[in-house]
Amino acid sequence: MTAPRREVVEQGGPSTDLKAFRRCLGQFSTGVTVITTVCDREPFGVTANSFSSLSMDPPLVLWSIARSSRSLAAFTTAKHFAVNILAVGQVDLSQHFASSQPKKFASVDWYPGVFGSPILREILASLECELETTLQGGDHVIIVGRVKQYTRYSGNPLLYSQGRYAVAEDHPSLLLKPSPSASTTAEPAGDLRLMALLAYVEMYASDAFDKHRQRQGLNLSQSRILFALSTGSAQLSQIMDRSFLAREPAEDALESLSQRGCVMQQGDTFSLTESGRGLFANLGAEIERFESEQLAGIPKQDIDTTRKVLEKLYTRLKPA
Amino acid sequence: MTAPRREVVEQGGPSTDLKAFRRCLGQFSTGVTVITTVCDREPFGVTANSFSSLSMDPPLVLWSIARSSRSLAAFTTAKHFAVNILAVGQVDLSQHFASSQPKKFASVDWYPGVFGSPILREILASLECELETTLQGGDHVIIVGRVKQYTRYSGNPLLYSQGRYAVAEDHPSLLLKPSPSASTTAEPAGDLRLMALLAYVEMYASDAFDKHRQRQGLNLSQSRILFALSTGSAQLSQIMDRSFLAREPAEDALESLSQRGCVMQQGDTFSLTESGRGLFANLGAEIERFESEQLAGIPKQDIDTTRKVLEKLYTRLKPA
Repeated sequence: MTAPRREVVEQGGPSTDLKAFRRCLGQFSTGVTVITTVCDREPFGVTANSFSSLSMDPPLVLWSIARSSRSLAAFTTAKHFAVNILAVGQVDLSQHFASSQPKKFASVDWYPGVFGSPILREILASLECELETTLQGGDHVIIVGRVKQYTRYSGNPLLYSQGRYAVAEDHPSLLLKPSPSASTTAEPAGDLRLMALLAYVEMYASDAFDKHRQRQGLNLSQSRILFALSTGSAQLSQIMDRSFLAREPAEDALESLSQRGCVMQQGDTFSLTESGRGLFANLGAEIERFESEQLAGIPKQDIDTTRKVLEKLYTRLKPA
Repeated sequence: MTAPRREVVEQGGPSTDLKAFRRCLGQFSTGVTVITTVCDREPFGVTANSFSSLSMDPPLVLWSIARSSRSLAAFTTAKHFAVNILAVGQVDLSQHFASSQPKKFASVDWYPGVFGSPILREILASLECELETTLQGGDHVIIVGRVKQYTRYSGNPLLYSQGRYAVAEDHPSLLLKPSPSASTTAEPAGDLRLMALLAYVEMYASDAFDKHRQRQGLNLSQSRILFALSTGSAQLSQIMDRSFLAREPAEDALESLSQRGCVMQQGDTFSLTESGRGLFANLGAEIERFESEQLAGIPKQDIDTTRKVLEKLYTRLKPA
């Protein structure tokens, strides 16, 4: 079977549409870091997903900071900085350090690392660095650090992928029942452990629903904005919290929904218009239709039993 | 409630244990790219996860290549290169371009982009660049490119996270039933749609099983190697295919399992020793015990019904 060719969504030169260019760059997923330093006894911290390991010998890492950042002078002057790699539960910290509010450390739990740069709690890893050099990179400056001390913790990473926060999941092929016939190609469902079956069904359902969303002319960010505003009007920061979107995709989606007459803005507060509420209702109906289609022909009492079993597992497995 | 402090897994200076340092760097998740160019009419391509967007105005991106790479001269000499961002189904391509085999393009479906650099099929995005500058970075060279043409396709990204390939999943909080009480904090299970319930149970179960694996003194990579070798002896490239691991984590895990007397090597072929088979059996028993514990007290006929419903959903949702 020849795999179908993918659909081109957007194409062009970067200067013709910067937002579309940014969406294209967003196809590369990343973890999320908060990078910190101390300058003139004041702690500084910024959220960055431009982090990358660079060299093993010497041990170098890099990241980049906007020339327009208020923290630029601190990071190009201070002799040390620390990279805090965030865990899956730290969306709030990511949003907090991406904001422009002053005194970002006042409300955050941190302690000074070996060179004084702030280390946050509950992170996945820290890399405490000496500033090696800075390099010019257009409207950003590349900061290269020499790692002096690393610390790795257990846990799962926070991801930033296609404009929204996400979690990393094992590829379900890894959960097959071990058997001589095991391979990485799809197995008949009967060979799967219950947990693997769960993982597959979840993955396939999430892919399949994407098409239904597109049928409403909505992308993922837009549907999240509708969801976020369905519970009442909100300011941008609340919308970002409710929708798990970062500032730029949230602003993009708000703008496109406004142009479509689905969202209105009064001062700094956004809310759904009547046609926005209609679109949200359509999306909800689409979700219900999707579930009904998938469940069609399965006896209601079997579905109820499945639901009961899953609720029991949910209660048992949910961390306290 | 105070969140528990995370457990420190490894800590130190990079030079004392380069492998542990690399595992720490692996806590930062990334997408996967294949970067291509043409030099003296020959196409070159390397797998890279060091890609990062750098600047919007001018539109710059960067990545880094090892000084020891055979493709170094091509990428520092050629005037153009293309970044191919891989989709979730392209593990094979990632492994292929990470290998050192010659004539990598002979067996791959590609076409020349606007500046001649190879563009692969079925990718998520391409960025066709002019070489802007190269910068020194220890044992790597930083390549900075100016984006001249971007193309975005629909689809889901391939991830590289904590030493293995992975998929990005929506945070399950986003699948709650829309209701006035909806919030991003955990909801009682009764408020969840069936699909959201599935997503939560899958996520919590995967986290919870991590502890059981640790009880066997195994990390994720090691357990995958055991799994990969349980079906018979194999060479490194087959092990990487079966385990969804990249070269370094696979080599690391093979080495630690060899030291533990669980894996033996003859020529370039690896297999489980008797104690390796024992460890694999223990892990299998641990998985079974875990499922039994979670399912304890739920009537067998309810579990069978759940399994039947999930198998039906699996069959319906699985892409043809």
